[in-house]
Amino acid sequence: MANVLVTGGAGYIGSHACKALKQAGYTPVTYDNLVTGWQDAVKFGPFEQGDLTDRGRLDEVFAQYKPVAVMHFAALSQVGEAMSEPGRYWANNVGGSLCLIEAAVAAGCLDFVFSSTCATYGEHDNVVLDENTPQQPLNAYGASKRAVEDILKDFEAAHGLRSVIFRYFNVAGADPEAEVGEFHQPETHLVPLMIQAIKGERAALTVFGTDYDTPDGTCIRDYVHVCDLVDAHILGLKWLEDGKGSRVFNLGTGTGFSVKEVLSHSHAVTNTEVPHVIGPRRAGDCTKLVSGSVRAGEELGWEPKRSTMDQMISDAWRWHQSGYYER
Amino acid sequence: MANVLVTGGAGYIGSHACKALKQAGYTPVTYDNLVTGWQDAVKFGPFEQGDLTDRGRLDEVFAQYKPVAVMHFAALSQVGEAMSEPGRYWANNVGGSLCLIEAAVAAGCLDFVFSSTCATYGEHDNVVLDENTPQQPLNAYGASKRAVEDILKDFEAAHGLRSVIFRYFNVAGADPEAEVGEFHQPETHLVPLMIQAIKGERAALTVFGTDYDTPDGTCIRDYVHVCDLVDAHILGLKWLEDGKGSRVFNLGTGTGFSVKEVLSHSHAVTNTEVPHVIGPRRAGDCTKLVSGSVRAGEELGWEPKRSTMDQMISDAWRWHQSGYYER
Repeated sequence: MANVLVTGGAGYIGSHACKALKQAGYTPVTYDNLVTGWQDAVKFGPFEQGDLTDRGRLDEVFAQYKPVAVMHFAALSQVGEAMSEPGRYWANNVGGSLCLIEAAVAAGCLDFVFSSTCATYGEHDNVVLDENTPQQPLNAYGASKRAVEDILKDFEAAHGLRSVIFRYFNVAGADPEAEVGEFHQPETHLVPLMIQAIKGERAALTVFGTDYDTPDGTCIRDYVHVCDLVDAHILGLKWLEDGKGSRVFNLGTGTGFSVKEVLSHSHAVTNTEVPHVIGPRRAGDCTKLVSGSVRAGEELGWEPKRSTMDQMISDAWRWHQSGYYER
Repeated sequence: MANVLVTGGAGYIGSHACKALKQAGYTPVTYDNLVTGWQDAVKFGPFEQGDLTDRGRLDEVFAQYKPVAVMHFAALSQVGEAMSEPGRYWANNVGGSLCLIEAAVAAGCLDFVFSSTCATYGEHDNVVLDENTPQQPLNAYGASKRAVEDILKDFEAAHGLRSVIFRYFNVAGADPEAEVGEFHQPETHLVPLMIQAIKGERAALTVFGTDYDTPDGTCIRDYVHVCDLVDAHILGLKWLEDGKGSRVFNLGTGTGFSVKEVLSHSHAVTNTEVPHVIGPRRAGDCTKLVSGSVRAGEELGWEPKRSTMDQMISDAWRWHQSGYYER
């Protein structure tokens, strides 16, 4: 079976990608420094601990496994932290990705799937966000992801690297079989925060701002089920294997939910009201981020199957009953 | 006298900035690794050899000189090289600048003047390039400069760093007193290439492409005299000292010259035709880059005084008679 190097394979999206890769007939080789990832989440292939900035370790892993492609998920990804510690985001996300990309090129591994983000677009009120929308990131997280997109383009022109870049909207849900799920420490993502509040594991969820220019005043996001998201990555890998060349795809459903709507769905699915308090706006948050692209559907043949809000919450809820990863 | 740290102070623009700083009553402290700079060009203040990526060395220099501000010129800056070796551009220009910016913040040196480039805009046919034009760089040189602009914004939000960012159009000419001038090895800049061809120091100049959509088919650029350019930096430094906050300024005159027009002016000034041959387009070159901004004039009070093409060529010609720097 062909090996695929999965950086961040011990993280939320990376671990789901490993399961999807295994199901699609590949061997996922997880490369993760376990700073935010969980060794417990590495269940579908070999694990190699290492840092993106460690070129020697990367060279060893490329030599040992001879992967046919890289799926690059590893990144620091908290907007609040990016606002207060931008240097870490530039060093890890950009410096680390540069090191990985150089190692991949040196090893002749030229098919590269990269997890980027709609945060690269920044604020565009009343504009449909598609892949041609100008990228004007508002914080170091979005800026660092855009910089890696730039590096991939530069390395294509210079070294023939081919990349599929996915710009994620909000990812939620968990493996329906509850083998892997979403767990961050500290937790900053809405769905696990809601579930932990319902379970009494944290006092109450804070809703950051109710004075945005939206129908109910809370921010609107486009949620996609993590299993649908990683399905797109398998399609992206095959796209590259078929020689179709570099391409950028938004991954969102085109449907927006406000924070209050998500709380309401959660109440309905779990039969429990989510304990929450209202707080001020959080620096770096945009009013609305909803994908206006049909490219992934039309060109990759991607069809989200599980991305209803109720399904995302119930799958997340199921995994959260099974106990968390431990360090 | 207040010290100003000048990275790349041994290079073309940096050395002219050092002279202007001295004349304005500052002590320029040159920090340069001499990879592309020239120790011979350091004439107006102390010299400290070091690399941007050497945080320990930077910390020493900040501690020793306690500069009130940084002027950051040091960078790899050849488009052709950026196209073939993008990794070096990302590591040096972005990784190095990140290291410098972190050292400056750690030292409490929060006024920062950065030399960016119109290459961050990319191709915008028939569009007036002002500071609000979307940045869509076409190569790793422009992309690396845009990334540093992003880092400066992120560090302002997180750490209170204040920056004046200058986006240069094409810089030419030399100190009229011929103390410093323009000398690169290898040389890729039009004016010194012309002069070396006239002096018989190289066979003939290559004109890269005569099939662009311009009146004579050659690329159009906006040339600014290096002494006018560094004058803007002194104004930018005072802008920051006056607490006026972060700002981006284009530095160009708004007048475009095609390559053939520059050759014609050179013929007139030097009384010698420039030996040249016609070659194919060069990867990474845009058709036309001319500033459409009056911001530097209106807000900084910047007035280019020497930026006629004939003055730029005659000042460059004068310096080139005096012998080059040596390693």
